[in-house]
Amino acid sequence: MNTDPQGTLCNFLRFASVSAQPQHASDTRACAEWLSAILSDIGLEATLHETPGYPVVLGKTRRDPTKRTVLIYGHYDVQPAEPFHLWTTPPFEPTLRDGRIYARGATDNKGQILAHILGVADALSRGDLPVNVIFLIEGEEEVGSGNLAAFLETHRDALACDAIAISDTGMAADGFPTLCYSLRGIAAMEVRVFGPSHDLHSGVFGGAVANPATAAARLIASLHHADGRVAIPGFYDAVQPMAPWERLAAAESPLRDEHIATQAGVIELFGEPGFSSVERIGARPTAEINGIGGGYQGAGSKTVLPAEAFFKLTFRLVANQTPGNILDLAVAHLESQCPVGIRLEIERGHGGEPFFCDPQSPDGLAAQRALHEVFGRPPALLREGGSIPILKTFETILGCSPILIGLASPDCRAHAPDENFPVANFHSGIALNQALLRELAGTAKA
Amino acid sequence: MNTDPQGTLCNFLRFASVSAQPQHASDTRACAEWLSAILSDIGLEATLHETPGYPVVLGKTRRDPTKRTVLIYGHYDVQPAEPFHLWTTPPFEPTLRDGRIYARGATDNKGQILAHILGVADALSRGDLPVNVIFLIEGEEEVGSGNLAAFLETHRDALACDAIAISDTGMAADGFPTLCYSLRGIAAMEVRVFGPSHDLHSGVFGGAVANPATAAARLIASLHHADGRVAIPGFYDAVQPMAPWERLAAAESPLRDEHIATQAGVIELFGEPGFSSVERIGARPTAEINGIGGGYQGAGSKTVLPAEAFFKLTFRLVANQTPGNILDLAVAHLESQCPVGIRLEIERGHGGEPFFCDPQSPDGLAAQRALHEVFGRPPALLREGGSIPILKTFETILGCSPILIGLASPDCRAHAPDENFPVANFHSGIALNQALLRELAGTAKA
Repeated sequence: MNTDPQGTLCNFLRFASVSAQPQHASDTRACAEWLSAILSDIGLEATLHETPGYPVVLGKTRRDPTKRTVLIYGHYDVQPAEPFHLWTTPPFEPTLRDGRIYARGATDNKGQILAHILGVADALSRGDLPVNVIFLIEGEEEVGSGNLAAFLETHRDALACDAIAISDTGMAADGFPTLCYSLRGIAAMEVRVFGPSHDLHSGVFGGAVANPATAAARLIASLHHADGRVAIPGFYDAVQPMAPWERLAAAESPLRDEHIATQAGVIELFGEPGFSSVERIGARPTAEINGIGGGYQGAGSKTVLPAEAFFKLTFRLVANQTPGNILDLAVAHLESQCPVGIRLEIERGHGGEPFFCDPQSPDGLAAQRALHEVFGRPPALLREGGSIPILKTFETILGCSPILIGLASPDCRAHAPDENFPVANFHSGIALNQALLRELAGTAKA
Repeated sequence: MNTDPQGTLCNFLRFASVSAQPQHASDTRACAEWLSAILSDIGLEATLHETPGYPVVLGKTRRDPTKRTVLIYGHYDVQPAEPFHLWTTPPFEPTLRDGRIYARGATDNKGQILAHILGVADALSRGDLPVNVIFLIEGEEEVGSGNLAAFLETHRDALACDAIAISDTGMAADGFPTLCYSLRGIAAMEVRVFGPSHDLHSGVFGGAVANPATAAARLIASLHHADGRVAIPGFYDAVQPMAPWERLAAAESPLRDEHIATQAGVIELFGEPGFSSVERIGARPTAEINGIGGGYQGAGSKTVLPAEAFFKLTFRLVANQTPGNILDLAVAHLESQCPVGIRLEIERGHGGEPFFCDPQSPDGLAAQRALHEVFGRPPALLREGGSIPILKTFETILGCSPILIGLASPDCRAHAPDENFPVANFHSGIALNQALLRELAGTAKA
């Protein structure tokens, strides 16, 4: 099988394992079974564990107590492929073009997890796998990993490990080795702003009655200083300042302002003073309005003083902020700013803690050496701006911090039409798995 | 006919003369013809003038050059009656309950214009009409009077007059005689706020890119000081300060804060410091957000940094502000406040000049005497907050200021289900017409 890695990847990609879409339930389950068979074929003890949703696939070597144990996490489910008409070739018919394999899931996450599987397969075939390995591959990552925490709790002993490796994050630049050591947390809320009991004539009442749309805007404006700093009292209190080595790593990141501006489609970037864009995205918390609405939404004008308005916002958090504390501070601030004649209803939404893992730890240094060896240069040390709440769950339940060695290129189009995975990254991923396991084998327990 | 005023009003109200709804085109035209016949029956020279929309009905006495000429304006079209299920009795089957006639158009404007017609009819039948009268009754008031200015221009000589009387405004309290001497003008605009070229992942980009929803909110917040005053530089420069008699009239208005709060459905009123609610509504300009939107509008949360946002606003203007100047000031202010990384598109909307007419002028005093005589108490002198741009058109083309002696009670439900007109107001209106014409007959030309 390992003689045709690309063929195996194409087989994996042909399953339309879209966990969000009920019409793909049998495809998703068939994908899990195929994957379990693959793990078994390469010599692992493969099992398929039912959950209230899609099964978790486990593949384990026999546990040798003289070796360290590395858990490798990934997922076999993929995002929906819609809109289909924007794909150059069909999303579930993998196609090679210009050195990239195009298919839904190519990067996220089938290409990356399969690279790990093939790396282990190769080592097993040569009889020199230096660690015990546990593959844990779930089928609900794209719909929130709702059953994973319970699975980890239930199988805590069977999943006991010394290190966790995950390839599901991005590279700072195309082909640039990258160790992601931090992701932001998240805390969501929705604010509903109420004024008069019904929409009013803006002539008959305007001037004497507080306008909820104006009040919503003033509340939002109170969240930031003009220079971009968040203005909620206490918001930055728990933020762990960037260490000098972090600022150096950010300054040396191959991800530059011009790349960020191009990807965002803006002429000019904007953010908190005193930090570069890479730092603002990875190492600084934000308060971002995701949606706002109220009053007349149609064409032209309607002279109404609306009865209510709303806004939705999410905070991105960095270590050591917590969702609960940040929501407390935000609620207190908004309530203190609520204008006369206005009533607020604030609904707290989902939250996830930030993730931070020292890349200078023994296992972090092992990962850096492996990346250096495979790519021929020292890796970028990156803080990513997104949130993967499940990382904290791994850390809490299994007691070690995931090592994030993602292989997603900046133009991999994950979650979008024409998702692709460079063949070079796929082969680098196989080599990286082997280098990483060798390096982790020699690392003293942290 | 005048022996059964209520019967005549019911006949008038049975026409579903809804100018906005094409299915009522023949009803509306039939109403104009009925009205023309009524004017003819009472002894006027009645004519029906075609326009590109619904006809204008004129009814004139023979012009006696020794008498002053009073033009009385009204409209025979009505608002749509929907939603029908909220009417206690059908909107075009006038019904008497508790001293009020319920029907669409009962107050706005059929009851009020018919009171004038019946007042003139009665005087003509007794042979003592003290002035020349011109009735000008249009059929497009509820859809913007789009053809009226051209009609006035074309018939300027035939419509030459010394005074204009209109009963299409409100009473400060139920049955309280009211002379409205000012209405606010209006100026509309829409602001579109653009940031990134497409919606962004709030984790991957949040912190480094200006958020258009936040920018829209900050722009809106910049329109006012926290205390409610408009913060646009120069906004108040052209405002004619309230004269001492105006502040006295406002203080004595039977329209009190508690009435305004009850009608608006608010616990607490809010507005510009230094002015009462009646003053804020009638005598002070405003900047009111009518609609705001951007980003995710559905249930729950979506972690998007939106590509754009918008807001719609209208300014209510007072003498001597002009729509053009206020829009200029607003555009300059918003552009000066536009944050880094954000681009604005500002669209100017419709405008209408404020109306102000001195109630202490000879004709204003004549109207006050007539109101006092009919209702047995001095009238409230009221500045209304709404806008009737056509008033300024009358003033400009015909050269005299309309006298606004409205008979709409605060709970007449104009434009809403269960619109009604107190029978007492109808009979007072007939008497008021006669008293007003007598008083205006004796007034020296202003």
